[in-house]
Amino acid sequence: MIQIDDLIKDVQSRFDARNIAVNRVGIRRLRHPFSFENQNVVGYFDMLVNLPENIKGTHMSRFVEILNEQPTVLSIAAIPLWLEKIVSRLQADNGFLQVQFPYFLKKAAPISNTSGWMDYDINLRGIFEKGCAKTYITVVVPVTSLCPCSKEIADYGAHNQRSHVTVTVCVLPGFSLEDLIKCVESTATCELYSILKRADEKAVTERAYDNPKFVEDMVRDIATLLKTLPTIKGYKVSIENFESIHNHSAYAEIDNLSAKTI
Amino acid sequence: MIQIDDLIKDVQSRFDARNIAVNRVGIRRLRHPFSFENQNVVGYFDMLVNLPENIKGTHMSRFVEILNEQPTVLSIAAIPLWLEKIVSRLQADNGFLQVQFPYFLKKAAPISNTSGWMDYDINLRGIFEKGCAKTYITVVVPVTSLCPCSKEIADYGAHNQRSHVTVTVCVLPGFSLEDLIKCVESTATCELYSILKRADEKAVTERAYDNPKFVEDMVRDIATLLKTLPTIKGYKVSIENFESIHNHSAYAEIDNLSAKTI
Amino acid sequence: MIQIDDLIKDVQSRFDARNIAVNRVGIRRLRHPFSFENQNVVGYFDMLVNLPENIKGTHMSRFVEILNEQPTVLSIAAIPLWLEKIVSRLQADNGFLQVQFPYFLKKAAPISNTSGWMDYDINLRGIFEKGCAKTYITVVVPVTSLCPCSKEIADYGAHNQRSHVTVTVCVLPGFSLEDLIKCVESTATCELYSILKRADEKAVTERAYDNPKFVEDMVRDIATLLKTLPTIKGYKVSIENFESIHNHSAYAEIDNLSAKTI
Amino acid sequence: MIQIDDLIKDVQSRFDARNIAVNRVGIRRLRHPFSFENQNVVGYFDMLVNLPENIKGTHMSRFVEILNEQPTVLSIAAIPLWLEKIVSRLQADNGFLQVQFPYFLKKAAPISNTSGWMDYDINLRGIFEKGCAKTYITVVVPVTSLCPCSKEIADYGAHNQRSHVTVTVCVLPGFSLEDLIKCVESTATCELYSILKRADEKAVTERAYDNPKFVEDMVRDIATLLKTLPTIKGYKVSIENFESIHNHSAYAEIDNLSAKTI
Repeated sequence: MIQIDDLIKDVQSRFDARNIAVNRVGIRRLRHPFSFENQNVVGYFDMLVNLPENIKGTHMSRFVEILNEQPTVLSIAAIPLWLEKIVSRLQADNGFLQVQFPYFLKKAAPISNTSGWMDYDINLRGIFEKGCAKTYITVVVPVTSLCPCSKEIADYGAHNQRSHVTVTVCVLPGFSLEDLIKCVESTATCELYSILKRADEKAVTERAYDNPKFVEDMVRDIATLLKTLPTIKGYKVSIENFESIHNHSAYAEIDNLSAKTI
Repeated sequence: MIQIDDLIKDVQSRFDARNIAVNRVGIRRLRHPFSFENQNVVGYFDMLVNLPENIKGTHMSRFVEILNEQPTVLSIAAIPLWLEKIVSRLQADNGFLQVQFPYFLKKAAPISNTSGWMDYDINLRGIFEKGCAKTYITVVVPVTSLCPCSKEIADYGAHNQRSHVTVTVCVLPGFSLEDLIKCVESTATCELYSILKRADEKAVTERAYDNPKFVEDMVRDIATLLKTLPTIKGYKVSIENFESIHNHSAYAEIDNLSAKTI
Repeated sequence: MIQIDDLIKDVQSRFDARNIAVNRVGIRRLRHPFSFENQNVVGYFDMLVNLPENIKGTHMSRFVEILNEQPTVLSIAAIPLWLEKIVSRLQADNGFLQVQFPYFLKKAAPISNTSGWMDYDINLRGIFEKGCAKTYITVVVPVTSLCPCSKEIADYGAHNQRSHVTVTVCVLPGFSLEDLIKCVESTATCELYSILKRADEKAVTERAYDNPKFVEDMVRDIATLLKTLPTIKGYKVSIENFESIHNHSAYAEIDNLSAKTI
Repeated sequence: MIQIDDLIKDVQSRFDARNIAVNRVGIRRLRHPFSFENQNVVGYFDMLVNLPENIKGTHMSRFVEILNEQPTVLSIAAIPLWLEKIVSRLQADNGFLQVQFPYFLKKAAPISNTSGWMDYDINLRGIFEKGCAKTYITVVVPVTSLCPCSKEIADYGAHNQRSHVTVTVCVLPGFSLEDLIKCVESTATCELYSILKRADEKAVTERAYDNPKFVEDMVRDIATLLKTLPTIKGYKVSIENFESIHNHSAYAEIDNLSAKTI
């Protein structure tokens, strides 16, 4: 059957004489609703492939077709299949997929047990190069940090604040996003909750004061745990404390990822 | 039954001697998954009430409880019920609800008929004051604009660009968000699509060139249509062209909303 | 002398038959370096005028010319002159100017006296309507808040966090931005500093614990002070606490501005 | 002389038994006014050092002191001196400095010669590791792109839009930021201006139509030029077209930087 586009010139497919390969080309910031591990969310999609040195352009609409031909169902385990689909449809050697979206965990408050949704920013990336697919995931886990110096030098009180722990890992089979988030939350001064009744507020206030950590302490404690996790290969942890006594952040990072991840 | 919190001091409920009422108090930027008119989306919730001059504070956790006691189902028509629930649970006179989220419409390309999801930013607000609930909705509709001056003075070509049309209306019974979006898209130089095959690209290119509009033209044409819409009471339209020849925007607005809406 | 543009059609100046006046039209988000009360800063400019019902379009390049014909020198007191210049150059009845930029105050730490620059976000707006110019200024003052409930119910410690106090006022002659900022900082649980040595950190930690305030307390205390300020006419105060125990904000506002300010 | 802090415990300097080095620790997002190559601008500073495995924490206030002890004067050539100052003051082996700020060039319109400031986002980074300082700079150059396919298949017109060209280079002696920006602008479909009179608008409209380029064309043409630039060592170019016919971007990148740059 003749497609309607077959009657129209295909400028993209022409020969390109500059002899320069393009590492990645495609679409960015396409917002799309999808299901991620049984949660209905909305995310921004980047879908890219390489372009050989002798071809003028890629076919952008095909990326969007891949997303729209049926309801989009994503999971960490399915990233290699998505990369395969992209590479095959675009007739490319390398493929790249990046999806940024919020992820939710139902969490119960520590004393009252009242439960609510906590939200986490996710950046899920797949890279297909030299016949091999790798999956990276970045999660931002918001936590409480309480300053050990402030606690020790003050006669009472201690400054504390919300902090963002950003962890990037290269995932291996068996990886659990929920486990990674819980690992981070367990090493923080205190974790966050969407609902806290008064009994809970008393508990988290005391827990935080009992558990002071510098940004350096938290990054080391998380790295210590990640080193033992069998379902990841390499990690980068960075922490940003939105200081309650300054208008800038305290920051620390430990990076043992060998590759560029973005 | 005695609740766990009954054993703990309730600082918020105390008498406040400053004698100053607070217009709005509550929670902001709570990210939460929900269903909006049968679409599964994620949004940011602001939930506020007034606080009388003689009470020290409001009970913040109750707002979050309202959202978490069952799966959140929102619709434009249900906003008054949500306001009622907020005001009643917080024992307040006035209530305010604001939800910011993306909304999607399935759109078919003009020639090939290939279809994909187009996304629109929504800000849905309900205000309950003096016993009366009002519902406002703001939608950002991205469109194409093509400059009439550029077309007329140049021997060929015409600069064009993506533009954001932002419409705020006070809704009456029978209001349809989809109709409002289509009304805006029909008055633009051209509408946007998530998928365009080559035959479609030819069509939208020619349609845009045939239909040049200044930012002033578009704002007037949309206002003309909105004036005749029986399901709204008042409107504000603003348009921002992300000029392809400048690093700043061209902007125009027509505002006949009598009230502060935020 | 004949200008080069006189030889080219002026599409904008044509008659418009739709008979709809445009409230505001012009340029937005133009980034420009300037001097504000002797500080060298960079800001985003919006410059708008009304457009009568019988004219097709405004002349956008004139706004940019106003900014570029000599080094831009701004002050709060000079806003009416700027509005006059805009209205006169664009041959309009009404004019609007909005400039968003950071403002800095040199602040000494409370004990060590070490000094550094604190930054504040400013939104300076002028509105010229019906022959009358009004100047509004919005400043975001970052401060510390410490929760009175957390302090009272916990055996030790208290959650605290960075907060943003956003104040909008209509300025009268004699208004001082620095005084407004200091007024806000003095009513907060504690103020922020860019540099704190250990002796300072001890002082602010104890000061914060001695001075717990709900978001409701801070908004009332600031409103109380603003009511007595002779150099402003009307104010809106809103406060957002970036809660260290939640991933959302606590928020309160008191609004006695009679007009839409944006 | 005894400093006031000598009387207070120094928690940060204590021994740390976890035996984990921290790659980078310090301050982030500190907004500060400064002079960059004789322009007065405002930027966000990140200042980081490594932390050996046996020390508990770094001394955050020293970074802020470095910025505040005298008016901050930055240049690309001075980055190694800044790194030296940071490393020496913090007694560290490695140092990292990142400054994000807007940069301005005075540009004359092509026909009328009217001139105005064009703005460019800059990210200037210095890395001191193993005794060696490297300086990277990223600049975002906004340009016009016009689609060759749209032009060729349509009977008239062609969709065009604003695009961001983001170039990161490792700089060698003699590097000129202005030359890099002009190199990028010269390879685009057309460059942007802050002021265009009608004669200029005619010229840029026709120039754009005469010079259609895919995102793939622009990334290749810029890479071709960068290859020949003797004052850089390695480059990454990425281009994002904010498509005027879609609500997502077209994107391409060519990356020959051997190192992680962030």
